[in-house]
Amino acid sequence: MSAHVFDQAIALAAMGDGVYAGATSPAYANMVGPFGGVTAATVLNAVMQHPALLGEPLSLTVNFCAALADGPFEVSAQPVRTNRSTQHWVVSLTQAGADGASETITTASVVTAARRETWSVDDEPMPAVPGPAEVPPYTVPSPVEWIKRYEMRPVEGAIPHTWDGSGSDSQSRLWMRDAAPRALDLCGLAALADVFFPRVWLRRATRVPAGTVSMTVYFHAGAAQLAEVGHGWVLGQARAQAFRNGFFDQTALLWSEAGHLLCSSHQVVYYKE
Amino acid sequence: MSAHVFDQAIALAAMGDGVYAGATSPAYANMVGPFGGVTAATVLNAVMQHPALLGEPLSLTVNFCAALADGPFEVSAQPVRTNRSTQHWVVSLTQAGADGASETITTASVVTAARRETWSVDDEPMPAVPGPAEVPPYTVPSPVEWIKRYEMRPVEGAIPHTWDGSGSDSQSRLWMRDAAPRALDLCGLAALADVFFPRVWLRRATRVPAGTVSMTVYFHAGAAQLAEVGHGWVLGQARAQAFRNGFFDQTALLWSEAGHLLCSSHQVVYYKE
Repeated sequence: MSAHVFDQAIALAAMGDGVYAGATSPAYANMVGPFGGVTAATVLNAVMQHPALLGEPLSLTVNFCAALADGPFEVSAQPVRTNRSTQHWVVSLTQAGADGASETITTASVVTAARRETWSVDDEPMPAVPGPAEVPPYTVPSPVEWIKRYEMRPVEGAIPHTWDGSGSDSQSRLWMRDAAPRALDLCGLAALADVFFPRVWLRRATRVPAGTVSMTVYFHAGAAQLAEVGHGWVLGQARAQAFRNGFFDQTALLWSEAGHLLCSSHQVVYYKE
Repeated sequence: MSAHVFDQAIALAAMGDGVYAGATSPAYANMVGPFGGVTAATVLNAVMQHPALLGEPLSLTVNFCAALADGPFEVSAQPVRTNRSTQHWVVSLTQAGADGASETITTASVVTAARRETWSVDDEPMPAVPGPAEVPPYTVPSPVEWIKRYEMRPVEGAIPHTWDGSGSDSQSRLWMRDAAPRALDLCGLAALADVFFPRVWLRRATRVPAGTVSMTVYFHAGAAQLAEVGHGWVLGQARAQAFRNGFFDQTALLWSEAGHLLCSSHQVVYYKE
């Protein structure tokens, strides 16, 4: 059985000393470089594959420094501090530039943790929305390849059909999952957290250039809870809190169809004009 | 005129090559090590003082790897990628361990940006709350030194007076500012974003050990807008979204009294039991 296209895209070959070799996948191509969610997942995958890994991902921050060119790249994942139950990682993704010199494309930090069962509660219940079977799929023709890798069923705040400057709200809610069946895991969740189109498009009903600068994911679910989701639907909710002089923030939550909060995620995004 | 106690606490001496020497301040002592907000501000201060700085802070992520011991430390701030209008920094704070070897205490990333005026809007208006003059100050005796450095006037979700397990909500709103007058700036704002006591204490009305693991600040205001705030009050709002197996997340917003959203901030926090 051949690997899922997502697993192919985030695949890394260990080169030793926490350095891994990867390559961009045409299946996840965005306007410029690959879908940022796949880059985030690739960064996380380097930590997940590292032999010194303690526990499971708790926090991931990815800073998108420059566009990743189509082709090979390297990821370096270094555990800089290992405590009894948490571990801190410094990660960078580099690529040979036009002159052959190594350039920093992405910096990242990851915290992993060996978690114990404690008192737990969700304070953000899943909103009452129609189930995925009741919502028609996303039908806007996709200008970029990666969007075809996901099934998306917008419940609220779909991408505008007309760009008439009429927007008044920045919140989207949608059901989503891989288009080709794949069981949800931590790398898959990291990618899903970046699926939302730029909030500025919705808020203004105006399409302007935009791109994520920095993104953070806090993982509430571990591998075992994600395994229960399998290829099930995930409800994503995203909204902006401020648009200010070229950058807006996005705050997002992702729930399983059973209503468990899987992660919270935040990003700051560049926009033009 | 002597420097403000906060400026003393975050003061750094340039050692060359982006390395800065600092020392903990007893004025900001927490239970173990200093108040995390001052560490975050110190990290940011290294970037702000670096001669290669482009623009102003846009995004700051600080990972608290280990407790900072009282005494001297070093901060290394390196610009790893400089674009036309954004710059990416990798920062680490190290300290000599018991055996004299350098240990990583904090890792961080900072994005700075030269911002241009664009279409802008706040999507999170300041909530309607009584003004700071109408709210009595925080009166719980402070168990730690740093809390005395701030004036806090809780509007909602004050620290529980009785620890009876009766909590039902995790949201706090409070007016806050430096206790000794100081004009708000970007380092001061980074520290304010960490002022909130652990959400798990409020949600459970139970005091358990807790500490921030990773914290992110997205700066919506720049230096000029903060200068307008001066020593004015800032309204902070914080709440948790999930408490799960030893870690909860916190999402926070800080507004000027004039109602401008100054920053959004997020963190993931360890808690016991």
